[in-house]
Amino acid sequence: MSLIVVGSVAYDGVETPHGKVDRMLGGAATYIALAAGYFTKVGIVAVVGDDFAQEDLDLLAGRGFDLSGLERVPGGKTFFWAGKYSPDMNDRETLRTDLNVFADFNPKLPEAYRSEPYLFLGNIQPELQRHVRSQMAQVRLTGGDTMNYWIMDFRPQLLATLKEWDFLLINDSEARQLSGEYNLRRAASAILEMGPHTLIIKRGEYGAILCRRDRHFIAPGYLLDRVFDPTGAGDCFAGGFIGYLAGRGVSANHDGIDFAELRRAVIYGSVMGSFCCESFGVDRFRTLTREEIEARYREFQACTEF
Amino acid sequence: MSLIVVGSVAYDGVETPHGKVDRMLGGAATYIALAAGYFTKVGIVAVVGDDFAQEDLDLLAGRGFDLSGLERVPGGKTFFWAGKYSPDMNDRETLRTDLNVFADFNPKLPEAYRSEPYLFLGNIQPELQRHVRSQMAQVRLTGGDTMNYWIMDFRPQLLATLKEWDFLLINDSEARQLSGEYNLRRAASAILEMGPHTLIIKRGEYGAILCRRDRHFIAPGYLLDRVFDPTGAGDCFAGGFIGYLAGRGVSANHDGIDFAELRRAVIYGSVMGSFCCESFGVDRFRTLTREEIEARYREFQACTEF
Repeated sequence: MSLIVVGSVAYDGVETPHGKVDRMLGGAATYIALAAGYFTKVGIVAVVGDDFAQEDLDLLAGRGFDLSGLERVPGGKTFFWAGKYSPDMNDRETLRTDLNVFADFNPKLPEAYRSEPYLFLGNIQPELQRHVRSQMAQVRLTGGDTMNYWIMDFRPQLLATLKEWDFLLINDSEARQLSGEYNLRRAASAILEMGPHTLIIKRGEYGAILCRRDRHFIAPGYLLDRVFDPTGAGDCFAGGFIGYLAGRGVSANHDGIDFAELRRAVIYGSVMGSFCCESFGVDRFRTLTREEIEARYREFQACTEF
Repeated sequence: MSLIVVGSVAYDGVETPHGKVDRMLGGAATYIALAAGYFTKVGIVAVVGDDFAQEDLDLLAGRGFDLSGLERVPGGKTFFWAGKYSPDMNDRETLRTDLNVFADFNPKLPEAYRSEPYLFLGNIQPELQRHVRSQMAQVRLTGGDTMNYWIMDFRPQLLATLKEWDFLLINDSEARQLSGEYNLRRAASAILEMGPHTLIIKRGEYGAILCRRDRHFIAPGYLLDRVFDPTGAGDCFAGGFIGYLAGRGVSANHDGIDFAELRRAVIYGSVMGSFCCESFGVDRFRTLTREEIEARYREFQACTEF
């Protein structure tokens, strides 16, 4: 095992112009782990209720994930989120958020996880993220995600947490909120003063930007000819990104992470995000192969080289 | 001389978060010609009033542009547009549009222009675009721009015009409107059935997509650390694109235009659009050098290679 993923495992109800599913496996940790699992071994830290279905457990276990950190709360209900996308799928309306057992999520790191080298902290309360990080003394690369709520209402805690991360992976609006700068280059400069030596700004269908103090890399988004359901695409980007780095055994040195590897990690992130959009929920990952991933990586290269 | 540019020469009033200018040189043909002029000789077809200032004429003449197609209407007033940008500069509100002499613009092609090989038709009534095209029997490459108004209210005329073009260069919302498809790959497929063998879809700060039936190229936008005034950036993209192709003497064969040259033309388009945003109106082009253009092209390459 190699990468520890902390975050939500949930059920989602999703409606897009292409259809509607009332309840299906979702959650950030689920998507991150499924995407990363093509590149590296994964251990999950999350919480579910006893309504969590055996078939969903089987899907995760079938990928070889270590589920000893997946806590099951007797009598509890799994986090449920429901949303509806706009016709162009660039906006979505949240119809329901039942935190259930996720409201009191206090990540418990199994002893065996503590010596693992890679850690991705999904979007949870920053102090919980920090507590997990503090238990992993030998970690080689730590990074994660956050969201507007923590940026606005838990800023001191978030800033203390970020100081110990190698990379932060957030979307453009979060980068603007965290930095107070609209321009993304200025936003990146401000955020890189907060601790992480590497920042990845996700821009949805428009791709992503990778920033370090001394250089940056701009990746356009892969052009799909049909977006079926964008739920989880950003988390799959994260999974592809950290999964690739973990699979390659990459470490940070005084310059940060090798930039050529980082660039490739961003493209693998985009590739995994693009696959995610091709079916409802996690469905695309039921059949996706590593060969398809490599083929899309090469296609990405062919469509962007000049 | 080599490239004929047809379109508006105007005065603009612009307010951005960085300042306000009540009246300055603007217009699509102005921006296209200024950007293209770094790569090729340019002849302009446009109309102004007798309020058009000598210093603005001098700027254009100083670039070596052929102005024999720049009609001056005695007693007429030059097209005036005023707009105000939102704080993030992704939206703008039109405060005033006085078409003035542009309302009756009927492009008159000087005899000497008719044998030129490159033609860019800026956004004017499609039948006028078609009429200009019909007078250039030896043209090697023809393309242009259009807008929502012609797409909605002059569709048959626009479709007849497009049939004779090699390339169409529009923004993403226009591509969606013209094709009736939201997804840009599907929109591109539909538009490529209308006549042009090459389609360039501009996506503002997010870059551009180049589409042919058999392949496509995705270019991200250059990341500026300050956008001073985005007015004219799309037209400068067009000028860089067609200017580069004209300067290289590129022709279309049965496969369309050489794809490697097209990709480079798109990057030069992005480069010219990025410079445009660095100052108010056309100001950046008063000092910009070809060396700066080449340096930014190389920087673009360094920031996107993986």
